[in-house]
Amino acid sequence: MGNIFGKIFSITTFGESHGVAIGVTINGCPAGIPIDMAFIQSELSRRKPGQSKITTQRKEEDEVEILSGVFEGLSTGTPIGLLIRNKDQKSKDYSHIAEKFRPSHADYTYHEKYGVRDYRGGGRSSARETAARVAAGAVAKLMLKEFGISFHAYVSQVGTLKLEKSYEQLDLSKTEDNAVRCPDPEMAQQMFDYIDDVRKSQDTVGGVVTGVIKGVPVGLGEPVFDKLHAELGKAMLSINAVKGFEYGSGFEGIKMKGSAHNDAFYVEDGTVKTKTNLSGGIQGGISNGQDIYFNVAFKPVATIMQDQASIDTQGNEVTVSGKGRHDPCVVPRAVPIVEAMAALVIADFYLIARTNKLRG
Amino acid sequence: MGNIFGKIFSITTFGESHGVAIGVTINGCPAGIPIDMAFIQSELSRRKPGQSKITTQRKEEDEVEILSGVFEGLSTGTPIGLLIRNKDQKSKDYSHIAEKFRPSHADYTYHEKYGVRDYRGGGRSSARETAARVAAGAVAKLMLKEFGISFHAYVSQVGTLKLEKSYEQLDLSKTEDNAVRCPDPEMAQQMFDYIDDVRKSQDTVGGVVTGVIKGVPVGLGEPVFDKLHAELGKAMLSINAVKGFEYGSGFEGIKMKGSAHNDAFYVEDGTVKTKTNLSGGIQGGISNGQDIYFNVAFKPVATIMQDQASIDTQGNEVTVSGKGRHDPCVVPRAVPIVEAMAALVIADFYLIARTNKLRG
Amino acid sequence: MGNIFGKIFSITTFGESHGVAIGVTINGCPAGIPIDMAFIQSELSRRKPGQSKITTQRKEEDEVEILSGVFEGLSTGTPIGLLIRNKDQKSKDYSHIAEKFRPSHADYTYHEKYGVRDYRGGGRSSARETAARVAAGAVAKLMLKEFGISFHAYVSQVGTLKLEKSYEQLDLSKTEDNAVRCPDPEMAQQMFDYIDDVRKSQDTVGGVVTGVIKGVPVGLGEPVFDKLHAELGKAMLSINAVKGFEYGSGFEGIKMKGSAHNDAFYVEDGTVKTKTNLSGGIQGGISNGQDIYFNVAFKPVATIMQDQASIDTQGNEVTVSGKGRHDPCVVPRAVPIVEAMAALVIADFYLIARTNKLRG
Amino acid sequence: MGNIFGKIFSITTFGESHGVAIGVTINGCPAGIPIDMAFIQSELSRRKPGQSKITTQRKEEDEVEILSGVFEGLSTGTPIGLLIRNKDQKSKDYSHIAEKFRPSHADYTYHEKYGVRDYRGGGRSSARETAARVAAGAVAKLMLKEFGISFHAYVSQVGTLKLEKSYEQLDLSKTEDNAVRCPDPEMAQQMFDYIDDVRKSQDTVGGVVTGVIKGVPVGLGEPVFDKLHAELGKAMLSINAVKGFEYGSGFEGIKMKGSAHNDAFYVEDGTVKTKTNLSGGIQGGISNGQDIYFNVAFKPVATIMQDQASIDTQGNEVTVSGKGRHDPCVVPRAVPIVEAMAALVIADFYLIARTNKLRG
Repeated sequence: MGNIFGKIFSITTFGESHGVAIGVTINGCPAGIPIDMAFIQSELSRRKPGQSKITTQRKEEDEVEILSGVFEGLSTGTPIGLLIRNKDQKSKDYSHIAEKFRPSHADYTYHEKYGVRDYRGGGRSSARETAARVAAGAVAKLMLKEFGISFHAYVSQVGTLKLEKSYEQLDLSKTEDNAVRCPDPEMAQQMFDYIDDVRKSQDTVGGVVTGVIKGVPVGLGEPVFDKLHAELGKAMLSINAVKGFEYGSGFEGIKMKGSAHNDAFYVEDGTVKTKTNLSGGIQGGISNGQDIYFNVAFKPVATIMQDQASIDTQGNEVTVSGKGRHDPCVVPRAVPIVEAMAALVIADFYLIARTNKLRG
Repeated sequence: MGNIFGKIFSITTFGESHGVAIGVTINGCPAGIPIDMAFIQSELSRRKPGQSKITTQRKEEDEVEILSGVFEGLSTGTPIGLLIRNKDQKSKDYSHIAEKFRPSHADYTYHEKYGVRDYRGGGRSSARETAARVAAGAVAKLMLKEFGISFHAYVSQVGTLKLEKSYEQLDLSKTEDNAVRCPDPEMAQQMFDYIDDVRKSQDTVGGVVTGVIKGVPVGLGEPVFDKLHAELGKAMLSINAVKGFEYGSGFEGIKMKGSAHNDAFYVEDGTVKTKTNLSGGIQGGISNGQDIYFNVAFKPVATIMQDQASIDTQGNEVTVSGKGRHDPCVVPRAVPIVEAMAALVIADFYLIARTNKLRG
Repeated sequence: MGNIFGKIFSITTFGESHGVAIGVTINGCPAGIPIDMAFIQSELSRRKPGQSKITTQRKEEDEVEILSGVFEGLSTGTPIGLLIRNKDQKSKDYSHIAEKFRPSHADYTYHEKYGVRDYRGGGRSSARETAARVAAGAVAKLMLKEFGISFHAYVSQVGTLKLEKSYEQLDLSKTEDNAVRCPDPEMAQQMFDYIDDVRKSQDTVGGVVTGVIKGVPVGLGEPVFDKLHAELGKAMLSINAVKGFEYGSGFEGIKMKGSAHNDAFYVEDGTVKTKTNLSGGIQGGISNGQDIYFNVAFKPVATIMQDQASIDTQGNEVTVSGKGRHDPCVVPRAVPIVEAMAALVIADFYLIARTNKLRG
Repeated sequence: MGNIFGKIFSITTFGESHGVAIGVTINGCPAGIPIDMAFIQSELSRRKPGQSKITTQRKEEDEVEILSGVFEGLSTGTPIGLLIRNKDQKSKDYSHIAEKFRPSHADYTYHEKYGVRDYRGGGRSSARETAARVAAGAVAKLMLKEFGISFHAYVSQVGTLKLEKSYEQLDLSKTEDNAVRCPDPEMAQQMFDYIDDVRKSQDTVGGVVTGVIKGVPVGLGEPVFDKLHAELGKAMLSINAVKGFEYGSGFEGIKMKGSAHNDAFYVEDGTVKTKTNLSGGIQGGISNGQDIYFNVAFKPVATIMQDQASIDTQGNEVTVSGKGRHDPCVVPRAVPIVEAMAALVIADFYLIARTNKLRG
């Protein structure tokens, strides 16, 4: 269970960090989408390790191979199989953690749940699994681009360094200009230096990724349980290290009065708009045509380069030593993952919305 | 779409605010659970309007009728049908909103999505729908009580009034002692007075409900997409007026270093525990046996007793007048809804976990 | 599990034979369908007991109440709740079967599976449950009527009395003219007399219902697992007492050579047709625009008016006595059930097909 | 849609006949199953082409690679990825069918449904896709072997040559002794000669595969829609070229009286048994502990080595010439596919049944 996401446009993923390969099958992708493999590969490169000194120096080429579902450059409506071989998995020695439970990792819970556990590099619980999501999300983006829908995520907070500007006050086209993926160059530099300090102290720190979706038509999202923001929230919370999700006014909105929080409707050039957008583009769980925006909170990753007290599978007290190559802060590399998951949610709701009326 | 929640222990709901009835069918409920109808009714009474002057004075008796799935006091494994008639739905005049889009309500999005809309009292988008969830959640609670799992939600913030104590510093048995459902009597009084002021000013205000789940065994939740906190987040975000969800250290945890954030394992009396619990009882998406706790942010509800500028279905500028009986702050009545949704998530994962190993 | 059918246009049913009520929630029904309650009621009347002396004399009024999802005569896109109270359930004495397992009924398997069992009239395993399907199927028919799709089932075999004409050689408008629901008047009379003889001998006999679906556009059904005929087969096999399903040439086609079995394409008036239709309107699991036709085999029902040897819940040998009012042959009343299930399958695939191409 | 099968133990498949590879991801497979790769490979070899002169001479090595979900020989509970490269796909010239619709193939329906079509060797509609099912079914068999459940399919009819013995009168261990996979040596020889004659006449013929499942405990299958035989029927009908399914007494049972058809219960050595088994091991949709048996009808495959009249994508009349290497009768190679699909159905219901009672 738990390896399928989506109802119509759905993905099934597989693969462990240090197994043979990871991959994804996209089921329900409509026929006729131009599948730009270079774009899919470029999305994977945004996620891959080793992009700068503030991301892990692990080498993963993340070369994607397409196995099915595309013919003469177009999706055919049949499942799209995507495969990424693990190239760096072999020789390493994992005996030092085979019997130990690393603090705040999934070692203990997997061990108890399944009895059997692929302990190499975190196995299935490794963030390596998200490469499959990024590949699939790239296909969703290609589909939605045809309808003018676009995705823009960026880093808005690292530790206590918080960008106090809203997404509308930023030039989001600058996000990819720096290693932190913060569109404000000054803040980006501060964040970079801070992450580098954290890295040098062999520690980690958390952060926030803000997501913005533009061009979503009115009517996506389903009432009651499958509200657009509920699926979006689930999608984000399913990403490794995520601890919180808010959209529109979010946790800040709590403090407001209804009279200030309500978004007044008006008509401009024949289009319904709202004067404010504290709803975050979603009302009653359904998109209202305004920008959708949300925040995703990432904890400081659990893998630190320091010794920590823990227990082993026999319950004995042991020391877990930091080893290997890890990210001091995950948010820069999380940006394409957040976009990918958002694209998967919107693609699914886009197709479902075609079934809402008698004449679709 | 969107009216089914859960995979094994699943619910299907129906009903509009001012239709004939609302109801729920529970599918996949195991046989042999003592079904205590008085308990189900008492849970509904916690949610119902008119409990004090700070909740809406609307009268809804919310009397639940059981239609199937229970025989001689025990669940039989067949679907449990629960029905709640709408008693107060008749004569009221809704012509004043039939053609108008109330700001920050679902009027506009439903209208555009479906073309047809039951505008009476918000129709399907009304919070009345949550009564069905509370009834179903009560059945989930009855099942989980058999395994020592319990649910404790309470109001921890109203507007800017924030309870600065953690759930462990509170006596949660006092939650039901006051109309606000805040277990700290002093803070409860302040919140009560504040909500009453807001009510008098014909406005509304937001708040936070904190949820705590005790007694969850190790191993619930599925890797990757159906992580325990991801489903929990979706469940909470699907409740009307919710804008955010966080668990464990949540948005605050961003600021911490990994070395401080990691929860060290130790063994006490043969049981694995963690010294801190910033993970919120969930690691890698799977319960680790510690308490699960989370916060749910509710916006100030959109229905205010003031005039507001808006548009009608033809795009004309109109004034929407506040009318009727509504909650100045939803969080006191949201407490049993949060518990119900949490119980539904845990019940489903509890059953799924039986399928994880060769010998279940 | 097992009480939900369909993916987009889906139904959830509940209810026991002798409980308070049975019912169904239709989820995913598009907005804008004229909901003709008289039609739904008339479909239920075709299924109800007591229609002639060859059907059970049990009285079930099967009066359907609509609880939600319809406003001013049109479906609103929200779930449609339908309720049918059980009126004849009360006083009867079931102590004679409470502890006995009736041969070839579901008594023993339910008992072992669940431990708890509502033994009154078969509980959930009673064919009474199919009333909910007929009500939901009527809504599916109303939707599909808008697109020119129609459903025609009839009795083509009772015991060894087999109608040797194909559906094309019959006037299907005559199906409802007789109590057997066989459109050939002569054969209908023979079947009627035969069933009446079987009834008098306190026995039962099996039969075949043939289904025909006209007006299905090209492209319904999904490749691989969810082939149109695979879902249709599942739908039919899920009806009580069904033992077999075949479509197109079916079991007879086995004996043919490919050269004779292949359906040659040609174009007539700009429309692609096939010269023969041994494919039964489905190729590769997808409708090809020709008529869809299939046969459904029903066993002789297990309830007979004779004494039978069996065992009780303790494993003791006992005698089960025939009692009550039952059908000597179920196929006449199964005709509307077969149509209903077919309509549910087609409605679901009709909506799914809108998601197959980039521009739907 | 349509590429996922199963609810808990589920599979997602991908791949076209002449694409890069086909594959399957098994989701929900319990941890702790010994994964015998040699067994999986041997099952694939039973399905592969070129086994004798009566099967296609096409060469497919069907070498399976395991990509994930197994560690140190045991399943880990995470998804099992299986990959089979297409080795024979390259050079061939498909221009002769690129624009033509072969009679009774899926060419026309795919073309209309999707607009885009991989015409090489039937693309996704090719029976090559079933190799993925056989690989996944082998894993299901490995799981169920641990509980004493076994699968035995064999050919019982080819054209008009029908084995008149029931499965109980046959020595099923002899099934693999001949190329036809009929456990009766004499009939096997007749069938072989007949198929060879059909092959020489450049034609094809249909047949029946009978399936037997032994060792199924009481209680598998879910009431109402997901009856055990309904899912089994869907599974079988989803296999290429299948036109019918019946279980237990099937279509023959129609002719019987209820008094003869009912299976009387008795107790032997403390175990509940039935004197006859016309129910086919399933009552009320739930297994009753007796053998499950069923028949699957396969049509004569559409690919014949003769010229046929048809149309092209423009609606012009054309001649389709027989070419390539194809099976004159599919049933010998369908035997392992029938077993695989049956194993997938039982594995899923086996896990679901653990959730039926309060204490599983």
